[in-house]
Amino acid sequence: MGNSAAQYERFVVLVKELADVSHAQDLLGWDQEVNMPAKGVNPRARALGTLAGIRHDRLTAPELVDLVTALSEAGLQGDQAVNLRELKRSQQRAQRIPKALIVEMTQTESLSHEAWVEARKTDNFATFQPWLEKVFELKRQIAESVGYTGSIYNALFDEYEPYAQVEEVEPVLADLRQRLVPLVAGIRDSGHVADDLLSRTFDVTAQQTFGRQVMTDLGFDLQAGRLDVAVHPFCSGTSPSDVRLTTRYSPAQMQTSLFGIIHETGHGLYEQGLPDAEGMPVGGAISLGIHESQSRMWENLVGRSREYWQHYLPVLGEHFPEQLAGVDVDRFYAAANQVAASLIRVEADEVTYNLHILLRFELEKALIEGELSVQDLPGEWNDRMEKYVGIRPDSDADGVLQDIHWSVGLIGYFATYSLGNLYAAQFYRQASADLTDLPQQIASGEFSGLLGWLRSNIHAVGKRRTAAELVQDVTGEPLKVEYLMDYLEGKFKPLYGLD
Amino acid sequence: MGNSAAQYERFVVLVKELADVSHAQDLLGWDQEVNMPAKGVNPRARALGTLAGIRHDRLTAPELVDLVTALSEAGLQGDQAVNLRELKRSQQRAQRIPKALIVEMTQTESLSHEAWVEARKTDNFATFQPWLEKVFELKRQIAESVGYTGSIYNALFDEYEPYAQVEEVEPVLADLRQRLVPLVAGIRDSGHVADDLLSRTFDVTAQQTFGRQVMTDLGFDLQAGRLDVAVHPFCSGTSPSDVRLTTRYSPAQMQTSLFGIIHETGHGLYEQGLPDAEGMPVGGAISLGIHESQSRMWENLVGRSREYWQHYLPVLGEHFPEQLAGVDVDRFYAAANQVAASLIRVEADEVTYNLHILLRFELEKALIEGELSVQDLPGEWNDRMEKYVGIRPDSDADGVLQDIHWSVGLIGYFATYSLGNLYAAQFYRQASADLTDLPQQIASGEFSGLLGWLRSNIHAVGKRRTAAELVQDVTGEPLKVEYLMDYLEGKFKPLYGLD
Repeated sequence: MGNSAAQYERFVVLVKELADVSHAQDLLGWDQEVNMPAKGVNPRARALGTLAGIRHDRLTAPELVDLVTALSEAGLQGDQAVNLRELKRSQQRAQRIPKALIVEMTQTESLSHEAWVEARKTDNFATFQPWLEKVFELKRQIAESVGYTGSIYNALFDEYEPYAQVEEVEPVLADLRQRLVPLVAGIRDSGHVADDLLSRTFDVTAQQTFGRQVMTDLGFDLQAGRLDVAVHPFCSGTSPSDVRLTTRYSPAQMQTSLFGIIHETGHGLYEQGLPDAEGMPVGGAISLGIHESQSRMWENLVGRSREYWQHYLPVLGEHFPEQLAGVDVDRFYAAANQVAASLIRVEADEVTYNLHILLRFELEKALIEGELSVQDLPGEWNDRMEKYVGIRPDSDADGVLQDIHWSVGLIGYFATYSLGNLYAAQFYRQASADLTDLPQQIASGEFSGLLGWLRSNIHAVGKRRTAAELVQDVTGEPLKVEYLMDYLEGKFKPLYGLD
Repeated sequence: MGNSAAQYERFVVLVKELADVSHAQDLLGWDQEVNMPAKGVNPRARALGTLAGIRHDRLTAPELVDLVTALSEAGLQGDQAVNLRELKRSQQRAQRIPKALIVEMTQTESLSHEAWVEARKTDNFATFQPWLEKVFELKRQIAESVGYTGSIYNALFDEYEPYAQVEEVEPVLADLRQRLVPLVAGIRDSGHVADDLLSRTFDVTAQQTFGRQVMTDLGFDLQAGRLDVAVHPFCSGTSPSDVRLTTRYSPAQMQTSLFGIIHETGHGLYEQGLPDAEGMPVGGAISLGIHESQSRMWENLVGRSREYWQHYLPVLGEHFPEQLAGVDVDRFYAAANQVAASLIRVEADEVTYNLHILLRFELEKALIEGELSVQDLPGEWNDRMEKYVGIRPDSDADGVLQDIHWSVGLIGYFATYSLGNLYAAQFYRQASADLTDLPQQIASGEFSGLLGWLRSNIHAVGKRRTAAELVQDVTGEPLKVEYLMDYLEGKFKPLYGLD
């Protein structure tokens, strides 16, 4: 065995141990949201802190640093090269941020989060403002430590959407905004009357039974995953053979679980379809945007399609014979696709959702670049909300204070939600071209065709390609705004009698 | 700050980090039994292996070894001395066993466990015999590495019942056996006819509701713990503020959950009552025997008492009005205390249970001491079973192959079950002397008196005393067999019309 073969072997041992520590971190995090009793919070915080320290120490330990240096000269190929590249990325990021800065950031996030909870409750932005200023200041220091080309935003964006440059993404998102605003205005002015169909009372147990049925129909393997209840739904995977989804149920808001479960199942199918690399980086997800493309594709392009409800409305009707008596597919499809200008992102429909995101993206970029002060943020938020969605918040609680993200230092994250929608539409158009009877398959409750396509074109790729490369590979083009807009206009203009 | 004060401070940091790793190990283990999907087993095994390695490396790291050496000269007092003593114990044990031996033991346990599952299924001891021989051989090597005084058994026993010497315990257990055998024979010959009351069909949901009621009545804090379902019930705690119990439910065997929940609640109350030392050893349980004394006291001395059912039979009757119609306390009390010679330990009643344990204790001690060969084990098992309990297994599956323990290297463990029963009876006699109206308290569903007594006399002690010291402190005497025998004879002779 050559020297570099032995070095690579040792590298694999150390990297898999790092993944095992992450496995523990992920499970402790999942448990905290799903199972942990209220009083368990302090010991859990200590344990998570220690595990984070262990992971950091091992990632930056001299042995692993030396191995990475040596292997960088070894001309590794294929998956070995991917594993080296990705480990090196994480290692360099961890090395470049001074430990004191990490500690200060972690403490600040915790206090800033508390301040946000209180400020939101009392609708008092002023008490949160100094914390948000500190978060952005520390994030700026972190960005400077990490280094970047172009905008300082890239240093943060890169953590969630690796290898992407905001300079490439921004024009696409700006284009999206310019095309969405008139569509939303048209819908708003269409005089459409809302249908309260999905706000009737739907028994939670029946919602659960139906949701589980949907999960397994779509192809989620319950021998390699679970569905639980959590206040804030999420998907968490420790490996492709243990993927955990959560959702929430409300009797008066069936859409929460109805589409929430499909959304998380989309994430879960991606996790279950990743190559099982026993924790090596090649088996990881490409980016948050690609992850989100999988959840949004299943939730919206499949789960809010007319064909989908051709198949599922009769099934759902068996669970809710009274509530759905006399409801036909046209009516249900329209109710599932109702568009309303609303103030709250997490309640937004498929059309306005991206405007909520774009507003946040623009503001956080301006804040981190120093083009906007935190003091001016609430006013700027409200002005853009009015300009984009057509309504103005009465309070900061329903405006700039509504999201947790910035309070806990998630800056550079929001854009990935809209990227997910763009990727989803572009991928789906390609899937529809490759699988010519896709609508008929969906109308007959047959999802294995689409899942197989996603498995081989996207899931099985793991981290072997960047998001931009994947889009090019799969669709033959770079990311373009027209596929999402074509889809949205093609769907919503007829629904709202526009053009 | 003196040098040793600074050293102790650093010692605390390192020991708490060790506890944080254990927190993760415990949670991953709990999750594996309660939540983990079937296919998650391999990644979980790898993660647990890595965490065990991290814990071992940190426990035996030069810095912590040097600190222990230095602090051993510092004349620490009180809790600091306890923390040092206990950490030193674990550290020395970890240092003395060669890593290669640990690896071989771990691999052997895994394969031996597989062989045991297969041998039990096919009732073929011969296929398991070589594995059991290897387990005992490796355990002998481990015992020699660890070192011991007196019997080699002590090196293994010490892991579960610290500071105990089998030479002191054995006469007590032999005495117990000699007094139990005639009691069991008397009951067997009493001509008593079994009551199938508890084998009627009891709805599982109502069992769950009643079980939760009992848990909270006894004082278990559900803000600091949970109750879940698992195939093999257990109690697992990551800290006093997060204690997790499991049970199982069967419609045709209500006693499983009825007494299983009280048993696990007993363990859970101990865990919740331990001093919160943020993971420092002083906050740990004294021994498995003391732990078991808490579960058995609540399960048997409280939960199978006439007074307990004076209070709870009407409550249970509300959940099961049909099944319990016309059943009075005398009948229910007798049904809850039915004694039957049976082959299977986990189904055994309060009287015969200890004979199942004593047989295993005697055999494992003879095996590790080389006084008995594995080949002769099945015959010896069956002979003793006949002699002690009065029935002879037809098959090894219902004999020597029934328990998982030896297959996974748990040798020196069984004795702690009977020690638990002995401690429980001796403690309970003292509690009854201190709380003069304890029976009346229980008959009126008032458990805080007993819990308060246990909290201050036993739970809050943590690891500050050894089991033998605790028994002496609390009862003014060393461990004696008569308290358990007085209790058993006083309860079962009247029930079975003996004397």
